[in-house]
Amino acid sequence: MGGKYYFQNILGTFVFDQNFKLVEKDSKVLKKYKNLKEPEGKELVGILEFFRDRKYFDEFYKKNISLTKKSIKESVTNDLLIIQTINSIEELDKVANMLAKRLREWYSLYNPELSYSIEDHKKFVEHVLRKDKRKSEMGSELSEKNIKPILELANKLKGVYEFREYLEKYLEKLVGELCPNVAAITGSLIAAKLLEHAGSLKKIVMFPASTIQLLGAEKALFRHMRTGAKCPRHGIIVQHNLISSAPQKEHGKRARALADKISLAAKVDYFKGEFIGDKLRKELEEKFK
Amino acid sequence: MGGKYYFQNILGTFVFDQNFKLVEKDSKVLKKYKNLKEPEGKELVGILEFFRDRKYFDEFYKKNISLTKKSIKESVTNDLLIIQTINSIEELDKVANMLAKRLREWYSLYNPELSYSIEDHKKFVEHVLRKDKRKSEMGSELSEKNIKPILELANKLKGVYEFREYLEKYLEKLVGELCPNVAAITGSLIAAKLLEHAGSLKKIVMFPASTIQLLGAEKALFRHMRTGAKCPRHGIIVQHNLISSAPQKEHGKRARALADKISLAAKVDYFKGEFIGDKLRKELEEKFK
Repeated sequence: MGGKYYFQNILGTFVFDQNFKLVEKDSKVLKKYKNLKEPEGKELVGILEFFRDRKYFDEFYKKNISLTKKSIKESVTNDLLIIQTINSIEELDKVANMLAKRLREWYSLYNPELSYSIEDHKKFVEHVLRKDKRKSEMGSELSEKNIKPILELANKLKGVYEFREYLEKYLEKLVGELCPNVAAITGSLIAAKLLEHAGSLKKIVMFPASTIQLLGAEKALFRHMRTGAKCPRHGIIVQHNLISSAPQKEHGKRARALADKISLAAKVDYFKGEFIGDKLRKELEEKFK
Repeated sequence: MGGKYYFQNILGTFVFDQNFKLVEKDSKVLKKYKNLKEPEGKELVGILEFFRDRKYFDEFYKKNISLTKKSIKESVTNDLLIIQTINSIEELDKVANMLAKRLREWYSLYNPELSYSIEDHKKFVEHVLRKDKRKSEMGSELSEKNIKPILELANKLKGVYEFREYLEKYLEKLVGELCPNVAAITGSLIAAKLLEHAGSLKKIVMFPASTIQLLGAEKALFRHMRTGAKCPRHGIIVQHNLISSAPQKEHGKRARALADKISLAAKVDYFKGEFIGDKLRKELEEKFK
């Protein structure tokens, strides 16, 4: 009974004799031996005993770390880039809002009429930077050195708007590569928000359509489950113009149909199927004409 | 009894005869007439009746508006500029924090080690922009087009830090002009925050020192008054290094002394007195050596 055992772990492939002494270690060793047995029960315990030797600890540790690092390195997918980008866009919106309100207040010391005549923040910034002070009767005469920081703030704000636009285009490309079919139905912003809430395209694929319908309405959903309040009918997808432009009572029905199509499109995207996004979108539009 | 009445309102000075008919209207008219009487009681009613004529409505309206506009125009003081600036600085801090957290998360896809090795946000941004990727074993190999938006974000963030510094210098000048004595004791940031909470230097001057001591701790103060919880010992001024660097049990005492000096300095500043800020600060430092 000259039977030998083979054993594999992250350090490689090992061949042991009957007394659990190491015979050879090599990943290509298996072909050399005939009748290699897989250790079981007591034999396995004996072999594991072998690896309890302190000299292997360091080796195990290093190998583990390098494997982990490698898997971290490889874990970066377009999903993650999309999530970072959509989060940045949402944060830039907050930043822009905060700075725009400040700019309006500050600039109003100089020209209070302008803030009331232009509601859109972006246009307001453009006007401020154009520096045409058209007859402000109420505005104080600020000296050049007191106007400069205000214009500087307007400049920064303009930069934020431009960066947001740039990111939106970048997002469009990323989403177009990862899930062109979903994007064709929802547009890249909503697609990215769905990805962000789900965590990845894979997760969206595994969700039932009803979950996709409610992504982003978790708070209302749990309130419904806890207190019996009304069940939410839609989450993020309510921002889709097929829903938001419809009368209130149609919302539930449309959200359901939209979530169905998204679920289908996500599956096609995940398994690299053909592009059918336009067709799906047309079907939806036909249905709700 | 050929006595005439004179009457003044925002439209000017008017002279009326005994039947409350208008005789003349001019701001320099008063010298021409002797024995002009100020209308009282019934006479006043008669004259006011005169101004009920519709033709004056428009005049009153226009005059009122122009006076209001003028007073708005003249209401802009350094106080208001300081308040706008300190508010901007505080908001920029929020913005910088938000974007720095995002940058760290995003950049970590590319080089996760860096975020852990540099705690300071500003230094982190500098490192990112220097683009030296020192052996990141875990970072994913992002293509140029996926790195660009990250660097762009770092650039924006750098701009925010620079703008904040610029505003801080500008604030220093403004505060130095308005209240050099307060600034000498507290530094321009705390002085500006006090102004922001009080609303103007004039209001600080009218506050008792105990109010200055608690500016910025309104919530705790009202909780104390409502529920009998502990009374707060300091508001904004706790940020002053004479207090923050002292042991906890000294805080109350030091806050009281500091608020006293600030109150004194604010009065000197408001009434354009001499510069005694350095002396006041030295006295405080001596006291708490």
